[in-house]
Amino acid sequence: MAQKLVFAFGDGRADGDASMKDLLGGKGANLAEMTRLGIPVPPGFTISTRACNLFHERGGKMPAELRPQVERAMAKLEKLQGKRFGDSGDPLLVSVRSGAKFSMPGMMDTVLNLGLNDRAVVSLAETSGDERFAWDSYRRFIQMYGDVVLGTGKERFEQELEQLKRRRNVALDTDLTAADLRGLVSRYKNIVRRVAGKAFPQEPARQLWGAIGAVFSSWNNDRAQRYRRQYGIADDLGTAVNVQCMVFGNLGEDCATGVAFTRNPATGENEFYGEYLINAQGEDVVAGIRTPQPVCKEREGDASLEEAMPVQFKQLQKIRATLEKHYRDMQDIEFTIERGKLYMLQTRTGKRTGMAALHIAFDLYDAKRIDQKEVLRRIEPEMLVQLLAPVFDAAELARARKTSRVCGRGLPAGPGAASGAIAFTAERAEQMHAEGKTVLLVRSETSPEDIGGMVASCGILTSRGGMTSHAAVVARGMGKPCVVGAEALHVDTSAGKLVAGKHTLREGDALSIDGSSGEVIVGTLEPHPSEIQQVLTSKKTGRSQGSRSYRRFAQLMRWADRHKRLKVRTNADTPHDSTVARALGAEGIGLCRTEHMFFGEDRIAAVREMILSEDARQRGKALKKLLPMQRRDFLRIFTAMDGLPVTIRLLDPPLHEFLPTEKAQFRQLAQELGMSVKHVEDKVQTLAEANPMLGHRGCRLGITFPEIYEMQARAIFEAAAACRKKKIRVKPEVMIPLIGTVEEYRELAALIHGVAESIHKKTGLRPKYQVGTMIEIPRACLVADQIAAEAEFFSFGTNDLTQMTYGYSRDDAGKFLPDYLERRMLPADPFQTLDARGVGQLLQMAIGNGRATQPGLKVGVCGEHGGDPASVRFFHERNVDYVSCSPYRVPVARLAAAQAVLSSSAVGSTA
Amino acid sequence: MAQKLVFAFGDGRADGDASMKDLLGGKGANLAEMTRLGIPVPPGFTISTRACNLFHERGGKMPAELRPQVERAMAKLEKLQGKRFGDSGDPLLVSVRSGAKFSMPGMMDTVLNLGLNDRAVVSLAETSGDERFAWDSYRRFIQMYGDVVLGTGKERFEQELEQLKRRRNVALDTDLTAADLRGLVSRYKNIVRRVAGKAFPQEPARQLWGAIGAVFSSWNNDRAQRYRRQYGIADDLGTAVNVQCMVFGNLGEDCATGVAFTRNPATGENEFYGEYLINAQGEDVVAGIRTPQPVCKEREGDASLEEAMPVQFKQLQKIRATLEKHYRDMQDIEFTIERGKLYMLQTRTGKRTGMAALHIAFDLYDAKRIDQKEVLRRIEPEMLVQLLAPVFDAAELARARKTSRVCGRGLPAGPGAASGAIAFTAERAEQMHAEGKTVLLVRSETSPEDIGGMVASCGILTSRGGMTSHAAVVARGMGKPCVVGAEALHVDTSAGKLVAGKHTLREGDALSIDGSSGEVIVGTLEPHPSEIQQVLTSKKTGRSQGSRSYRRFAQLMRWADRHKRLKVRTNADTPHDSTVARALGAEGIGLCRTEHMFFGEDRIAAVREMILSEDARQRGKALKKLLPMQRRDFLRIFTAMDGLPVTIRLLDPPLHEFLPTEKAQFRQLAQELGMSVKHVEDKVQTLAEANPMLGHRGCRLGITFPEIYEMQARAIFEAAAACRKKKIRVKPEVMIPLIGTVEEYRELAALIHGVAESIHKKTGLRPKYQVGTMIEIPRACLVADQIAAEAEFFSFGTNDLTQMTYGYSRDDAGKFLPDYLERRMLPADPFQTLDARGVGQLLQMAIGNGRATQPGLKVGVCGEHGGDPASVRFFHERNVDYVSCSPYRVPVARLAAAQAVLSSSAVGSTA
Repeated sequence: MAQKLVFAFGDGRADGDASMKDLLGGKGANLAEMTRLGIPVPPGFTISTRACNLFHERGGKMPAELRPQVERAMAKLEKLQGKRFGDSGDPLLVSVRSGAKFSMPGMMDTVLNLGLNDRAVVSLAETSGDERFAWDSYRRFIQMYGDVVLGTGKERFEQELEQLKRRRNVALDTDLTAADLRGLVSRYKNIVRRVAGKAFPQEPARQLWGAIGAVFSSWNNDRAQRYRRQYGIADDLGTAVNVQCMVFGNLGEDCATGVAFTRNPATGENEFYGEYLINAQGEDVVAGIRTPQPVCKEREGDASLEEAMPVQFKQLQKIRATLEKHYRDMQDIEFTIERGKLYMLQTRTGKRTGMAALHIAFDLYDAKRIDQKEVLRRIEPEMLVQLLAPVFDAAELARARKTSRVCGRGLPAGPGAASGAIAFTAERAEQMHAEGKTVLLVRSETSPEDIGGMVASCGILTSRGGMTSHAAVVARGMGKPCVVGAEALHVDTSAGKLVAGKHTLREGDALSIDGSSGEVIVGTLEPHPSEIQQVLTSKKTGRSQGSRSYRRFAQLMRWADRHKRLKVRTNADTPHDSTVARALGAEGIGLCRTEHMFFGEDRIAAVREMILSEDARQRGKALKKLLPMQRRDFLRIFTAMDGLPVTIRLLDPPLHEFLPTEKAQFRQLAQELGMSVKHVEDKVQTLAEANPMLGHRGCRLGITFPEIYEMQARAIFEAAAACRKKKIRVKPEVMIPLIGTVEEYRELAALIHGVAESIHKKTGLRPKYQVGTMIEIPRACLVADQIAAEAEFFSFGTNDLTQMTYGYSRDDAGKFLPDYLERRMLPADPFQTLDARGVGQLLQMAIGNGRATQPGLKVGVCGEHGGDPASVRFFHERNVDYVSCSPYRVPVARLAAAQAVLSSSAVGSTA
Repeated sequence: MAQKLVFAFGDGRADGDASMKDLLGGKGANLAEMTRLGIPVPPGFTISTRACNLFHERGGKMPAELRPQVERAMAKLEKLQGKRFGDSGDPLLVSVRSGAKFSMPGMMDTVLNLGLNDRAVVSLAETSGDERFAWDSYRRFIQMYGDVVLGTGKERFEQELEQLKRRRNVALDTDLTAADLRGLVSRYKNIVRRVAGKAFPQEPARQLWGAIGAVFSSWNNDRAQRYRRQYGIADDLGTAVNVQCMVFGNLGEDCATGVAFTRNPATGENEFYGEYLINAQGEDVVAGIRTPQPVCKEREGDASLEEAMPVQFKQLQKIRATLEKHYRDMQDIEFTIERGKLYMLQTRTGKRTGMAALHIAFDLYDAKRIDQKEVLRRIEPEMLVQLLAPVFDAAELARARKTSRVCGRGLPAGPGAASGAIAFTAERAEQMHAEGKTVLLVRSETSPEDIGGMVASCGILTSRGGMTSHAAVVARGMGKPCVVGAEALHVDTSAGKLVAGKHTLREGDALSIDGSSGEVIVGTLEPHPSEIQQVLTSKKTGRSQGSRSYRRFAQLMRWADRHKRLKVRTNADTPHDSTVARALGAEGIGLCRTEHMFFGEDRIAAVREMILSEDARQRGKALKKLLPMQRRDFLRIFTAMDGLPVTIRLLDPPLHEFLPTEKAQFRQLAQELGMSVKHVEDKVQTLAEANPMLGHRGCRLGITFPEIYEMQARAIFEAAAACRKKKIRVKPEVMIPLIGTVEEYRELAALIHGVAESIHKKTGLRPKYQVGTMIEIPRACLVADQIAAEAEFFSFGTNDLTQMTYGYSRDDAGKFLPDYLERRMLPADPFQTLDARGVGQLLQMAIGNGRATQPGLKVGVCGEHGGDPASVRFFHERNVDYVSCSPYRVPVARLAAAQAVLSSSAVGSTA
């Protein structure tokens, strides 16, 4: 028997259900589900994604087994509706729509009113009693079919329509008469004959197969492919095709069409939130020619559905309740009212903001619809970043929208709000930044040479590119608000202007972007700390403080902590960052980079003196100046993290990073240090490296210049001793970076233990401490068994490990990485989401080998992957003990860690 | 029972034998073996290395179980000799010498004449009948003992001796009378009392234990540690101590002492080759005060042993035959004749040149002493490099030695002869090179900033540093003749002079070095191609041509090929290199780097035009110019390698490597290409990379600029088609570099196959070809199973794989690698010998995973490790199919590959 490729629904029965999204697509599965729920859905059938894949496998030929199944389904539909396809009496009209597993709005094609032809249009005029409607439906059908199936494009049809309107001297389509439209149909058919080279097909069956083929093909059109790349949707899923009886919202004043969310998708409020138009087709709501009215009564004077059609409104309210009860989540629905009868055309889980996600989940929990675990599962960890990112004031933003200052919308590539003076080049951005301006970099797209300008800007806006474009990838890496692919904007760099509809902006003009919504706003809007951020930073004690949002956020975090196994630490180099991270729930510092302290204004001189020293004695002198400063740094950080572990990485970057690069600066430096300019120049030249990433850095510095690590160890243990005196519970973990051989580790660990011992002897205080290593070189993973015999902990530096495992320099990969992502050479940016197959394999090997030598070896991750939900899940599954990430990603990691447990326990394993 | 720590030998019996080198050291084991062979050896005993290790484990305390064993052995010795230790009648005197498993000449300490004291010296005068001899022996003993055991140093003793000679107005020690020497002993004892703070010990037992302890301690003295580092000898072997009855070569004219090789160690000639002195102690032969005479009669007038002491000479000849027969190899021996009685003091396998190694092995084979396999085992593969490296004319070199132009000797760090004008700085070396001079760089030691000067020089000489110093490591990498650690030379860079004994040389003066022997020669010596090299390059046909050396070399290579399993290919980029490599036995090209072709004078302009192109069209134009040139290159290489496979790597380096770096050059380039200077500058800036090693290179270029790889593929397949027309058997293997993901491979392999198909269609010729990849990125090893599903072969680029696995940039590692090697942080330079533990693990994983997907997958190695014997052995054991190395290392690899089979079959496994 041939495999089932066609799934019918209608009249309360359906072959499919909501669980079958893989096969039926989201739309088809939900149409079946709604039918089963007794909700009025125009009957129809879904052709499965399997058929689409067969179609593509056979090079664009219809699979033979499909034809009889579609024919049977059509026959059933005719019987159910009591109409006949292509009938001259009462013709059956259908819509043909794509519907993939994941929603791809507007990316694929749709044909409405299919079944109309020269005879059926006449019948339709009779049965509907509306001749104008019939001819308008026919001319729309020809236009859509010509565009989608026959490849004629839309323009010629639209030109013809415009001409007719000019001749008739009318402004709106609706002012055209039935006769006008009849004439237009005739001209449209001529266009088809001329451009497609054949007559418009009159046989409904031929129309149907043409439309099905076109929808299948649309899966691979450019738009759809780009969309899938942007959102990481696999190419081999295929689309289903939904063939459904037409219902009309435009047969008169007792007709209407609308879209709605069962709750407010921006705030999460439990209010019915939608728009509709009387006497209109679905596309009219979107097209924006007529202003849609609210579904619910908000103010007097609104022509709300609630008032205009109270019966249907009540029915819709009831369906809203049914759907929410059934799906236990906020739904995004489409409906049409045909001559007083309500039909549901679509339901799907609605997209929402981070704030809405939080409140909807908790409201459902409060209503006992979902349990604690489900709340944790419902909220995408990434969304929490929105809750913490700076925001525009909602009222101000609303005012900007009302006053048409929102001049464009792009992809929300980096959350947060930013407002600044426009710079059109990276160079200017840097100059303006140097002049003290807050700069917003606006480019058609960015490239590697723009990095400096991106650093100097408060936010980045591009008119081109997707979620994996250079701008998006780099901005996310920098944590900057970013909007990309705002295609309505025209950036003219050479003319130095930005044209956005009626707005023309020049360098220095104020512009604002909302990196969470993708909106671009003309003028200045002040970014504010988010509500939760405000409470967090002002918060001193107690849990009950703060707004409802904060309380729910805090509750979510507590629940997450209750379920997660992974500990979450933070990467912090300052007391301020440590305090912030602690407020965000960090359970310690996983990476404190001591070199960041070296760059401080008060110390860089001593650092340079140390580097330029001619011998160990002079170096020792310079280091002596640094010692008290480092000690103070550690003392303050230990104090901020009282009771929690603090992992301190010893000096890592190559020494030349601390030296100036300009000739002019050499002279000044030489003067300051009382050295000859030549000596400084020679030293700079000697230290220069072809590949600093693979150069004289990390523990290699510790081996060649043990004085440096000795000073750092001394600062750590002296600070620890001082803490002990003050009863601060200090848990230092000294981390040696860039270990590649156990010999390196052994030598440096001995040095550190020696320093500790000498200070412990002197002070009589013996705070507990550990010495361990960063595993960030592939070889370290391969010899982890040896290293684990000596080290007290491993912390994976997944950034460097990724660089070396792939052979990608993060500084240079901008030259090809966006292209690689765009072209699917890589499944994801490996610097954002850990490459499980390659880098992950090394990590797993290192953990396995390390624990074979030292069972229970403490293992952490301190690369940026520690804050990426997918990577966190991987680390959870590989039995990592903790992840460490930047302070604002700590909540993301906590939730992701909880979800990792919940999803793994869902498939039967235990955490 | 206590473990045996003392092993006696003497009177034809011995506790040990030659196989016990681990325990008895080389000297002790061979003394035991000679005793067993009935060869006259002064009796004695060996304290094992185990005792030495116990001594060090106990922090420098004698192991308790040693004392009774030594006492028993001494008692046995006294009985055997009929003398008593410390006797006032006929005192037993012994020597105490170190003797480790591996010879460490002059690195550890020796004490002679032990047992003498104020009483015994009188007895010795009586029994020897030579008062002068007795007092001379005593004063020597006090000096040695003071220096070695009591830490007084030598200088004070020598000053005292000189003063005495001045007072007596004599030139030689031998002119001093017994009374003089008696007085000297008294002064020597005063020195000991003054400097060591205690009297010179009179009890022989105390003397003995002091000397044993000193020898044990000498294992860890600086000299010994440095030596072990230089030659890669493990620190935990420990030294044995040989306590042996003294015999004297200085008791009169019927006494003598000498050293000899059983064959000529320079040429391998089967001639007895040694020197001796009548009436002398061993140290006199080495000290160079008296000129030693030849052992064999060479010319009239020589006071040869053969003529002076014919009986003992015959006895020695007989022992020479016995030893060679027994050891089946050339021996390096020491002997002493005491009052007409011959004693053997040492035998060991003699060090020899590459040429000598070849002839000795073949002579022994011809004499049926060793078989073919043993010939293959006997010759260190590395020695073959000497046979192919340029050499000085032997006669000229001999003349230079005679005329005292040999002014120093260092470690032979890079084989080959070089002669040039002295430059004392890298900068001057570059300038002089630019002026057209042949430059020899002379430094006290080199550092990373000298690289440019090293490149510009024909050879490198340093006065400091060992085999793993910066100069040695870098010169070997560059294949330059190099002598390091020539400590007799004083390099004064600031004064611009080199002082070597009586010679003072300045910049521009001619100096020559022999990197195979370590000799430094004043003046110009012309380097010539070696004998074998001459035959190879002149050779057209037939095997019988050439000298005996060449014939034996060729025979060795044929035998090696008969036994080896690994194929040996070569890395060659030019027809000339291909031809040379083929003559040296290369079985194909394993790595043809196409970028080397891009640097040619006639093409760099087109390459730069291609890089600076503004779009794909312009790029295409430039590539069109390159196409015929690349095609011609391939055609000529294919022709040279007729019948053998040629692996061509597509463009690998980042594009900026082809562009100029100086501002002045930008202008010229812009002019040449008709572009603006700004455009050139911008492009250079855009292409610049922070870490080019991890940048936009290899297949990443192929992905971003497919036109480049397309042009190269076209050149390859068009050349292949042209070959087919000429009946040249062409086997191209197209290699895609730097693959990290299977997606990259898939895309580029499809491109290459597409080009091949189009050319095959056009020409109607279908030469067989393969497409495969270089495995050089750690991730490629981790996903080798995926890549092997697509690729037709793997070729490991172990250079880059090592760089990324260790996180070492080869360009920068000079900053710490020599230090790492010196300090044993690494067992060997990982760029010379493959790191089996780390990089090797990845390689093994890749082979395993690759062959799991594609059984029988062809696997090669094309990094420089392909020419390193230890690495070749590793590759053999890991079932690699072929290695590829530079042309002159092909013979090394062939022999190493054969030895790998022979050594693995020796331990029972089969190849």
